[in-house]
Amino acid sequence: MAKISIVQNILAANDDVAREIRQTLQARGLRTINMMSSAGAGKTTLLEQTIRHLNGRLRLGVIEGDVETAADAERIDAAGGESVQIITQGACHLEAHMVRAALTQIDLEAIDMLFVENVGNLVCPAGWDLGEDLKAVVVSTTEGDDKPAKYPHMFAASQVMIINKIDLLPYVDYDLSAVKRFALAVNPRLRIFELSCRTGEGLAAWYEWLLAFAHAKTEVSEEAEVGG
Amino acid sequence: MAKISIVQNILAANDDVAREIRQTLQARGLRTINMMSSAGAGKTTLLEQTIRHLNGRLRLGVIEGDVETAADAERIDAAGGESVQIITQGACHLEAHMVRAALTQIDLEAIDMLFVENVGNLVCPAGWDLGEDLKAVVVSTTEGDDKPAKYPHMFAASQVMIINKIDLLPYVDYDLSAVKRFALAVNPRLRIFELSCRTGEGLAAWYEWLLAFAHAKTEVSEEAEVGG
Repeated sequence: MAKISIVQNILAANDDVAREIRQTLQARGLRTINMMSSAGAGKTTLLEQTIRHLNGRLRLGVIEGDVETAADAERIDAAGGESVQIITQGACHLEAHMVRAALTQIDLEAIDMLFVENVGNLVCPAGWDLGEDLKAVVVSTTEGDDKPAKYPHMFAASQVMIINKIDLLPYVDYDLSAVKRFALAVNPRLRIFELSCRTGEGLAAWYEWLLAFAHAKTEVSEEAEVGG
Repeated sequence: MAKISIVQNILAANDDVAREIRQTLQARGLRTINMMSSAGAGKTTLLEQTIRHLNGRLRLGVIEGDVETAADAERIDAAGGESVQIITQGACHLEAHMVRAALTQIDLEAIDMLFVENVGNLVCPAGWDLGEDLKAVVVSTTEGDDKPAKYPHMFAASQVMIINKIDLLPYVDYDLSAVKRFALAVNPRLRIFELSCRTGEGLAAWYEWLLAFAHAKTEVSEEAEVGG
């Protein structure tokens, strides 16, 4: 029993910090997306491409969460984004206090929008509010189309699902309609993108939606709250 | 401080149960492998193929760990294996007490070797002893070749690394020599297999090693303990 109450206290403390982060970012009109996925689904590559493509139109900041190495933050910097690397040293997800510490290292005047790239893990990150406006889960066509059924909490917690690596569909046993059916069964309100960072297919729709989301301040916020 | 001591107590309690499991299985001469990977790397498919191929030579039992659904255990049964499904209902890794409970549901006389397929997650499962003889981590060529550097605990804890989906190498940016270099930097004693469950390439070496491991009782056990 003691264990459960401590876990609840930790989550409640996390939610307090997340609320504080959300107020800070919303007061500045900065929209924030918490990007989650299994390891290797392509979150960093998508962010690199997005930063390069929107260069001059939307200045993106990225808080990178990794168990070890600053390799992802280096990739974001090279693409022209503002980045901070959080190294969790074994922890399997980001928590709000880590994001609060990282925010002190970003010049919020220099960005128009913020991404938090969570630790690659389809389980643990789903339960932790980081003060984001919405959560996006990235899956890839090489992971098997049953993932939303096997890891439902992640898909229930997200407002957006991005199916990456559609260029590999001819070489894998992956049923696009099945993965969408599984995901929508868990969360009928999911907005779904299908794209390939390798060929560029489908990226235009993602960029268009992202620009609208970044600029449509309070309206989308209310919608996200209903969805989340 | 209270939180840390509770975590330590939980891990110590887990190790006690793992020791009990290890004694039970070793007394029966049953070798056990704890299979871990990111979600979608292909653990279940590899086990299906292995069960089918070794049919008549090695009877395999599989304890399946998933956050939700019994789909994997159904696949193992269809392939001809003995299976038990553990549904963790949100938990991101298996713990020894779950395996102990699952073992009561398997006829240990009916199998020659046991696999435990952990929850798909490159982070959390690495820290939990399940009473296995060795840990095997499966990576796939679609996940990026930097995974051993970014998730070092998993690769340090394992004795075997299986690189799956090598049939996709022509279509992805994945450097086989880089992933092996990263993995061996973390753990120079890793035994590495490269294979494709889709084309069958590389599976013969895996089957041959597995048969030798299953039958070489105490010698390999000592080797595994030095390596682990």
